[in-house]
Amino acid sequence: MDVGTLFHPRSIAVVGASSSPEKIGHEVMANLSRFDGRVYPVNPSADGELFGEPFVESIAAIDDPVDLAILAVPAGAVPDVVAECAAAGVSAVVIYAGGFAESGAEGERRQERIAETAAEHDVAVLGPNTSGFVIPGDGLLGSFASGIDELGAGDVAVIAQSGGVAHALAFQALREGRGLSAMVGLGNRVAVGFPEAIRYFDAHADTEAIVLHVEGTDRGRELLEACRAAETPVLAYKVGESDVGDFAESHTGALTGDHDLYVAGFEQYGVPTVSSTTELLDGATALAGGPVPDGPNVGVVTAQAGPGIIVADRIQRAGGRLPSLSDETEATLEELLPGITYADNPVDTGRPMPAFGDVVATVARDDAVDVVLVYELYEASIGLPVDRMEALVEAVDKPVLFATDGPDADVADDAAALESLGVPVLRTPERAADLAGVLARYGALRARDAADAEVVARE
Amino acid sequence: MDVGTLFHPRSIAVVGASSSPEKIGHEVMANLSRFDGRVYPVNPSADGELFGEPFVESIAAIDDPVDLAILAVPAGAVPDVVAECAAAGVSAVVIYAGGFAESGAEGERRQERIAETAAEHDVAVLGPNTSGFVIPGDGLLGSFASGIDELGAGDVAVIAQSGGVAHALAFQALREGRGLSAMVGLGNRVAVGFPEAIRYFDAHADTEAIVLHVEGTDRGRELLEACRAAETPVLAYKVGESDVGDFAESHTGALTGDHDLYVAGFEQYGVPTVSSTTELLDGATALAGGPVPDGPNVGVVTAQAGPGIIVADRIQRAGGRLPSLSDETEATLEELLPGITYADNPVDTGRPMPAFGDVVATVARDDAVDVVLVYELYEASIGLPVDRMEALVEAVDKPVLFATDGPDADVADDAAALESLGVPVLRTPERAADLAGVLARYGALRARDAADAEVVARE
Repeated sequence: MDVGTLFHPRSIAVVGASSSPEKIGHEVMANLSRFDGRVYPVNPSADGELFGEPFVESIAAIDDPVDLAILAVPAGAVPDVVAECAAAGVSAVVIYAGGFAESGAEGERRQERIAETAAEHDVAVLGPNTSGFVIPGDGLLGSFASGIDELGAGDVAVIAQSGGVAHALAFQALREGRGLSAMVGLGNRVAVGFPEAIRYFDAHADTEAIVLHVEGTDRGRELLEACRAAETPVLAYKVGESDVGDFAESHTGALTGDHDLYVAGFEQYGVPTVSSTTELLDGATALAGGPVPDGPNVGVVTAQAGPGIIVADRIQRAGGRLPSLSDETEATLEELLPGITYADNPVDTGRPMPAFGDVVATVARDDAVDVVLVYELYEASIGLPVDRMEALVEAVDKPVLFATDGPDADVADDAAALESLGVPVLRTPERAADLAGVLARYGALRARDAADAEVVARE
Repeated sequence: MDVGTLFHPRSIAVVGASSSPEKIGHEVMANLSRFDGRVYPVNPSADGELFGEPFVESIAAIDDPVDLAILAVPAGAVPDVVAECAAAGVSAVVIYAGGFAESGAEGERRQERIAETAAEHDVAVLGPNTSGFVIPGDGLLGSFASGIDELGAGDVAVIAQSGGVAHALAFQALREGRGLSAMVGLGNRVAVGFPEAIRYFDAHADTEAIVLHVEGTDRGRELLEACRAAETPVLAYKVGESDVGDFAESHTGALTGDHDLYVAGFEQYGVPTVSSTTELLDGATALAGGPVPDGPNVGVVTAQAGPGIIVADRIQRAGGRLPSLSDETEATLEELLPGITYADNPVDTGRPMPAFGDVVATVARDDAVDVVLVYELYEASIGLPVDRMEALVEAVDKPVLFATDGPDADVADDAAALESLGVPVLRTPERAADLAGVLARYGALRARDAADAEVVARE
């Protein structure tokens, strides 16, 4: 099965296209109006045009080849339409409707029919029971959600079991001023599942990191193998730690399975797991845009001890380590700030001060440190050490994170300047610590795999 | 010891007031320029005026009574200045400087001297080693932090062991468009500690909820008794779960102690603990502004199953319960939405739809439900059910929370309308679930205490 025509089609047909603005067959046509190729509205009971294209009676009635059919029709009609698409040579289909394996025996039979058609004709079916996908960089909005046209291009691909979670992640990225390289809601995964999507976006030129939202899958091994084979960093959000099995099965037809087994499996295959949508996006954004850490060791520099304690505490609980700094580092810190408040890791300068940027740079250069986290409440007379960080990120190949807060009008410029250097700026100590934790766990897995590879090479 | 003149002084002296804008003795004078009463700049080596007030040579040289002295002088000078204040009849002192019990033997001796003076003359000393306090409603900004003058009045009082965390919470509130009734950084607590601050703000007319940031205290029992005696809801953020003891002791001179013991102690005395600054503020804002839950049972309504699973999972791990709904509720739901996707708790409508508000109201009216959490991605053609929620919050005395996301320009108006009804609107499923979790834990403790009281009454 080739998902290339699904995620990069030359032409699209929308079956169930509608002139009524409140219908999803209208919403998706509106969202597709930016698409580069032809978009055929298919509806046997409609006349005239929609977004400049004349309505067509059926897929079969379209003379030109159609790569992708998006089905905005009720569940009962889906199996026949899929068969019609297959017969017409359409190689990719998106199915929005619910009412399949997630909803009882009749739904299961319907889904079985689709699965058979897909297998027989090698059709890349996305769904059923999904709100679709978007590839913002191609202007391809295969989703019926309103507002998704605001999402810009980015370098993180979202592959979510739930279309709702996919959209929640997309809107969260938008709200943070970020874009995505792709957003995919897999739904019931009758044909296109995690393995196919991971392999595609691993090879996707615009994608620098992949995030997964996983409820449960019966293709766990293939999913993990695809993760291990990926050269692109992958992070996973496995949900369903407590008892939500019943409700989850009613969702995309999959049990959530044993949460700990999934987490251990991901880890074994080099994928750190996270505990929230925010952690997922923050982690992927950092891995996509900046240097990748070589180990789990976090150097913390803080200008205020209290938030520094919060950060140090949380990083360790998140799997990060706080290594001791070298004698050389400690000596340099003493030189920079004679009588420094606390010169171990975390390094506490007591207050923001002109030497603060140099303190950060000193800790960042310590070989024991893989990730640097800086906490500094914004002080107007000093600001954040943007120039010093610019020199630093050119000199050291490690992730450097900043946490700060203050009135937006004061903080915004310096924060934007740091972000543009590839230094993520977070606004609470916990969010910064969580990001450092993800990076530390990713670094730990890389260090483990590098050590394993060395052993193998020596044998 | 009366902290009334500390938190509600009629006149203030700033010892170490300075004309140099980069000095904290200048910053605090600038911040105090909004204060209603007299503010005397004290500095024996300065001439002229500062913010319209002539410099005074010493506390003793001020003719009128001074309620509060704010000390912006180095640690070495502090014990003598405190003694001078006490001799002049000043009944409250704030000490910014560090270099006391948190920093070795000499510092300990200095702190001991202050403690003796405070005890002998009954002086309410805040600090040392704190960035101060603010009471925005009184225009009283006893902090040297830049930007803190932007913080408006609100109904939550922040009492933090760390001045840095106090300010981080204040800036977070500001960024969320909220104010605070008070922000206090206790620092080394040589005189004013948690018990005094809790009792004061429990009686403070503008305070409807109190939040605590706790690293460690040797007055644990008194702290807990003050919490139990408070009529105002109290939430606590106990930090230091992993090994940060060394660094923490270097901060405000206190060990973080056994984290689990603190958490259990707080719970025993009716105070739920939280795991982040965000959860602390969200929880307090909800308890201050809205109805207080009677138990731990959360009714979840979602328009998208995936985020609903995240929410249901996380609420249960946070100590909330997802009760079964009554037969009557289920029947009403079936009437509202024949063939509803999932009519158990969580209730899943499959998509946003016109009946969505009625579904929420039906769940909210179920007696098994103490807290309602709604998840609904914003859909432009339908919006959020603001009118329906307005009727609901008038009819039921339970917290109702909304989680939504979408482009800001679309969501903002409806979200603001819900907020103004006392319905908190969160933008990620996890943040909403965490808030529901805090409320559920608070509700559980109330239910327990109510049951205990009934037993006592019957005996």
